Amino acid sequence: MNRESRFVIVGLGLLGGAYARGLRRAGYAHVAALDLKEEALAFAKEKGYIEEGRTGEFQDLLARADYIIFSLYPTTFIQWVEQYGSLLPAGCLCTDVSGVKTGLVDKVQALLPQGVEFIASHPMAGKERSGVENAHLVDFAPANFLITPTERNTRRGLDFARELAEALGFARIHVISPEEHDRMIGYVSQLTHAIAVSLMCAPGAERFADYTGDSFRDLTRIAYLNAPMWAELFLWNREYLTEEIDGFTARLQRLKTFLQEGRREELEEMFRTSSAARAAFDKKEKEG
Amino acid sequence: MNRESRFVIVGLGLLGGAYARGLRRAGYAHVAALDLKEEALAFAKEKGYIEEGRTGEFQDLLARADYIIFSLYPTTFIQWVEQYGSLLPAGCLCTDVSGVKTGLVDKVQALLPQGVEFIASHPMAGKERSGVENAHLVDFAPANFLITPTERNTRRGLDFARELAEALGFARIHVISPEEHDRMIGYVSQLTHAIAVSLMCAPGAERFADYTGDSFRDLTRIAYLNAPMWAELFLWNREYLTEEIDGFTARLQRLKTFLQEGRREELEEMFRTSSAARAAFDKKEKEG
Repeated sequence: MNRESRFVIVGLGLLGGAYARGLRRAGYAHVAALDLKEEALAFAKEKGYIEEGRTGEFQDLLARADYIIFSLYPTTFIQWVEQYGSLLPAGCLCTDVSGVKTGLVDKVQALLPQGVEFIASHPMAGKERSGVENAHLVDFAPANFLITPTERNTRRGLDFARELAEALGFARIHVISPEEHDRMIGYVSQLTHAIAVSLMCAPGAERFADYTGDSFRDLTRIAYLNAPMWAELFLWNREYLTEEIDGFTARLQRLKTFLQEGRREELEEMFRTSSAARAAFDKKEKEG
Repeated sequence: MNRESRFVIVGLGLLGGAYARGLRRAGYAHVAALDLKEEALAFAKEKGYIEEGRTGEFQDLLARADYIIFSLYPTTFIQWVEQYGSLLPAGCLCTDVSGVKTGLVDKVQALLPQGVEFIASHPMAGKERSGVENAHLVDFAPANFLITPTERNTRRGLDFARELAEALGFARIHVISPEEHDRMIGYVSQLTHAIAVSLMCAPGAERFADYTGDSFRDLTRIAYLNAPMWAELFLWNREYLTEEIDGFTARLQRLKTFLQEGRREELEEMFRTSSAARAAFDKKEKEG
């Protein structure tokens, strides 16, 4: 990556917009974007996030591209690569922002023409909001950037992903396999969203709104979500997420059994285990 | 309540300490405390939270008391009233800080001597920490104060509970029945703690600590808990909490079914429902 590098962002939503904005701020002048929405492109151009935007007729833009960032939902991403992948020039490097990897990365890598490398990555910096108009709210500074290479990836691809994360200012960069990634995301992100949704879908929950404390508000903040995107992510990761839901449910049922049988000592033991595990998280955070 | 009123706080832990501190700051000079721990009393005296503290031989303190605040775990509270209730002077008014009410309030009211009124209340201002040394961390200003009268309570009792909440600076005062209270707490507080504990008890959860984002940290902050206290509260409220766990589990299983059967539209509908319900909470909060 250098000042003359040409970036094309495919899909100018929340994260595509935040990448464009971040790259321009980091001094990369040539950032173009493709999107179906004329308004999204106009907004980004006016804000100085992109040099140029197109809704179609983008062959020449792609032909000149050094780096391509796919910021599309997984299903649309694959469709795009099937339709336009052959337009990508040999030697260009691609990455994405997708929240799921297994089944997606392999497929995209298989579809791309010879000489075009796709190194998958996932910026853990999503928001409840969507759209390029909210791109300025995305904060990479405290966030993790995950790179999920396969055996098809090269050193050059990995270096690009790292350099991109550094240019955008991510706090930490991790390299893990697509499978580890999806298992971790299933627990850390998707299970927690499934829980918040299940909490908030309680019939008549609103009647308790007068009484909620901080803990309830913290726990349910993520129950606001972009429904089509999360449905897509959940469905892509359904095997791992199902496993996590099953594991969680079993632990909650164990707690319920202790409760019903009045097994105070086992309940306390469970509380001590959870307190210790949570403390380990905070400890790692302080060290990290 | 007036400047000459004599308060006795029974149990000088986190909330007992915060009440003592708050009363003294509100200008009530005569705040005494009973506790088994000499150090707790010495600490509170040194900090100016109390005028006097006793570990035993407290008949005279009780005999002079106008207002008594019980800040004990429910089981200990009942034991104390069984043992010492007869020492309370006719005309004195009592309240508590217990997080559960059904089965407790009736029992305490039945045990107290004629002429001693117990009006139950619950300050929703707990912390993960415990002990009088942490009393200064308790913040009543944003918190709810719940008063749960029964048919045995009088206008005078209710007025005392309100006046106490106002003196301590609570944001909002609500009057609800003990049963409504316990059902609400079962959902808003206990279910959320049960969920956070079940999340954090995942085997090997620590290995994901590098990857957690804000949502996971928010969701699990309450997984730190005072194990004996929460075991006690859970067991006291086991019927309502069991119902809430069952309702929540059924909703999570519905989500899992949609996921496994690839029912995207129903998943999105669930996400839209949860987003709307959460928005209603925030709306109420802004109005409140």
